[in-house]
Amino acid sequence: MDAFISYFPLWDKLTESEKDRVRASLTFRQIRKGTLLLDGSDNCTGLLLIRSGQLRVFVLSEEGREITVYRLFDRDMCLFSASCMLKNVDFHMTVQAEKDTELWVIPTHVYRQIMDQSAPVANYTNELMASRFSDVMWLLNQIMWKSMDKRLAAFLWEESAIEGTLRLKLTHETIAGHLGSHREVITRMLRYFQQEGMVKLSRGCVELTDPKKLAELAQE
Amino acid sequence: MDAFISYFPLWDKLTESEKDRVRASLTFRQIRKGTLLLDGSDNCTGLLLIRSGQLRVFVLSEEGREITVYRLFDRDMCLFSASCMLKNVDFHMTVQAEKDTELWVIPTHVYRQIMDQSAPVANYTNELMASRFSDVMWLLNQIMWKSMDKRLAAFLWEESAIEGTLRLKLTHETIAGHLGSHREVITRMLRYFQQEGMVKLSRGCVELTDPKKLAELAQE
Repeated sequence: MDAFISYFPLWDKLTESEKDRVRASLTFRQIRKGTLLLDGSDNCTGLLLIRSGQLRVFVLSEEGREITVYRLFDRDMCLFSASCMLKNVDFHMTVQAEKDTELWVIPTHVYRQIMDQSAPVANYTNELMASRFSDVMWLLNQIMWKSMDKRLAAFLWEESAIEGTLRLKLTHETIAGHLGSHREVITRMLRYFQQEGMVKLSRGCVELTDPKKLAELAQE
Repeated sequence: MDAFISYFPLWDKLTESEKDRVRASLTFRQIRKGTLLLDGSDNCTGLLLIRSGQLRVFVLSEEGREITVYRLFDRDMCLFSASCMLKNVDFHMTVQAEKDTELWVIPTHVYRQIMDQSAPVANYTNELMASRFSDVMWLLNQIMWKSMDKRLAAFLWEESAIEGTLRLKLTHETIAGHLGSHREVITRMLRYFQQEGMVKLSRGCVELTDPKKLAELAQE
């Protein structure tokens, strides 16, 4: 419980009875890499607070294509896993653990009840949503006004920063999924990057050989 | 003031002193078609409540290209004209009157002060944001995976041919089932079709008002 308190930014703003309710309903879960936490149809899992690990939040098209909307890391809260409590949300997100992940789950109805009464909790929820909204607006801008080479360069560069390595274990298929593109398009673009000396390709692996040049391309 | 009260959904949820503050700071503005209300750099104009007219909210790229994110009509509130009060918002929207528009402006600092204290106001703001978030997610899906509009247009057109009528007795749920989609997706798409003059919606019924345009869309 001590760990939760130090991770949950709202704790000090709760009344004693609210704290009791959170305490009594909280669960801790350990999730294997690859697990789907939310499959796009159920949005009532609860609010997720990540202790450690990494979640990918993405949308799926009707044809099964996907695009990464944002990622969540240590101390992040996943709001859309409780979107059934939010009026006017009519879209579906899918959430998958990209690494082994430990997290706390606050049941949706408990959070909702507290939020209904508490201005600080409601305002915090607002901030969370604004933050995700900004992520989505950024993505929209990327898609609208950045050509695929810049998006791919940005993706590889960020991925390298997240993983802390220049050797990324990623298939072209996976990259295509992240960028909402087709494998063929990504393969072609990666080969071009390789010709330009920015990456080196091998089976299931993309090695960044000139991260500076990639970063420049991403920021063009 | 009476008109404002009947348009402002939060009025009954305000305390007397909050009502006084809104009353004292409220302004009414008449805006000519074409006027820019927000130019993407200033986000502190205030909360706008539309009495009549139409606003277009769009984003601009650095090269000056634009994309409509959503539109606001009578009784809608414009939140991002007060986005300076929202933490974690790092994008800029541009707002332009598409028709002559009459609206009330609640100053940002007044709304912010009330929202900080009041759970109902904070929760209402949340709903507003969730609603705009849904608009943006819809747009994102449209951009990424345009095909659903074509599929729906084709479905309506075929159904009309099969039934021998332009008035289709179909719920959105049923249509979603036909297309392997979600009801919300269909509802939103049908509303878009209605805005474009292709259909007219009423309870349990979709009337094709421009079957030629639908057929063209289906075949694109």
